[in-house]
Amino acid sequence: MENSRPLDTLNNARNKRVIVELKNQKQFVGKLKSFDIHINTVLDDAREMIDGAEKRQLGTVFLRGDTIILISLAD
Amino acid sequence: MENSRPLDTLNNARNKRVIVELKNQKQFVGKLKSFDIHINTVLDDAREMIDGAEKRQLGTVFLRGDTIILISLAD
Amino acid sequence: MENSRPLDTLNNARNKRVIVELKNQKQFVGKLKSFDIHINTVLDDAREMIDGAEKRQLGTVFLRGDTIILISLAD
Amino acid sequence: MENSRPLDTLNNARNKRVIVELKNQKQFVGKLKSFDIHINTVLDDAREMIDGAEKRQLGTVFLRGDTIILISLAD
Amino acid sequence: MENSRPLDTLNNARNKRVIVELKNQKQFVGKLKSFDIHINTVLDDAREMIDGAEKRQLGTVFLRGDTIILISLAD
Amino acid sequence: MENSRPLDTLNNARNKRVIVELKNQKQFVGKLKSFDIHINTVLDDAREMIDGAEKRQLGTVFLRGDTIILISLAD
Amino acid sequence: MENSRPLDTLNNARNKRVIVELKNQKQFVGKLKSFDIHINTVLDDAREMIDGAEKRQLGTVFLRGDTIILISLAD
Repeated sequence: MENSRPLDTLNNARNKRVIVELKNQKQFVGKLKSFDIHINTVLDDAREMIDGAEKRQLGTVFLRGDTIILISLAD
Repeated sequence: MENSRPLDTLNNARNKRVIVELKNQKQFVGKLKSFDIHINTVLDDAREMIDGAEKRQLGTVFLRGDTIILISLAD
Repeated sequence: MENSRPLDTLNNARNKRVIVELKNQKQFVGKLKSFDIHINTVLDDAREMIDGAEKRQLGTVFLRGDTIILISLAD
Repeated sequence: MENSRPLDTLNNARNKRVIVELKNQKQFVGKLKSFDIHINTVLDDAREMIDGAEKRQLGTVFLRGDTIILISLAD
Repeated sequence: MENSRPLDTLNNARNKRVIVELKNQKQFVGKLKSFDIHINTVLDDAREMIDGAEKRQLGTVFLRGDTIILISLAD
Repeated sequence: MENSRPLDTLNNARNKRVIVELKNQKQFVGKLKSFDIHINTVLDDAREMIDGAEKRQLGTVFLRGDTIILISLAD
Repeated sequence: MENSRPLDTLNNARNKRVIVELKNQKQFVGKLKSFDIHINTVLDDAREMIDGAEKRQLGTVFLRGDTIILISLAD
């Protein structure tokens, strides 16, 4: 069995709801639309969350990769 | 169907009004004129916003990519 | 005997429980699923820990390499 | 019509008065003499500004690109 | 006589006890098992030290190169 | 007439007295001996200045490029 | 006469006593044994200094280049 790579995991998360946490402590939840090798990431139906509560709705948002700490499935 | 890439999303936002947030917590609203692979970004009719209020008008502004956290549609 | 390389050590830790510490002082424990040359890292069954106590469960989590300080075996 | 690129906008600003803002919150106004792909930038007749008031005159100044947040036309 | 290079010095320290200091002010002591050109470093029998006192034992630890300030022999 | 480049300006400043300001707010004045594409810079007869007063004399000093904010002529 | 380059200056300082200042405000004095293009630097007989007083002796120390602000001759 081949070893998987980190971007394979992101690829499996496409079109699923994910949590993205940024270095500035902001957190976004949305549907993972796309990413690239820099981990630049686009979410659809994105919401910025603070302590589990929704702060604002952003629709489609482009997040620059170098600001991202982690990405995990939201559900 | 091919997977989209993050820069495709930015490309679709050309000539539309976008919000750009920077690492220094500044926020700009303007028409997306251009961007490159470093996410260097040029806005036309740019305004710097603070808490939803306009702080100043900048006209055309070049934003260096490594200072950008996120880009989303303004409308 | 050939000299080992740092990524050999990570490779030997695949499928084992590891501790990952981030620059923002967060700590994650989980099973090392994958990593790449940027040290982008995926953990399965990941938990965020604070002072040895579990803060939350994340399932599978992608951690961007440039936020990582250290990785060690958890057991 | 071809899409423009961010450096095209800087190119059009050559020999015009621009505002350059740095990550350390300093602001310079001067005539844009040159720039390169790293956004290293040279201004002629440069003045450092604080809250719209002139702090000091620098003549020709080389600004290292990675310290720059934004460049816009001054007039 | 040829000039030595910094990585030659690290190479001579393999299997010896070294001190590694990180940007977050943490200090680790352990046997230098491996390193690479990014200065990603693996220590065996690693201990985290605070003011000369042992804080915890980590066994084998991978330290990401860009967090490292210095490496010196411990003995 | 060809457009000049930022390093042309530095090249014209060779052997002239320049001010170099660093990200840590230190300021050095000295004769520009050399620089490279990373803006690593060597000054001769260098003095560290604080608020216009000389703090110490350093003779020849190598300044790593990524710490530099700006370089301008001192006279 | 050819223009010198910054690394030529470091090369001339080999085997001489130098001062190395780091971004974390630490200062080291020692004999310059080696350096590379990243300015990774090895000092022999290295001492960490605080306000001109010796804090500790480190023997041979490897300093990662990206933590270095300046290198100058100590004598």
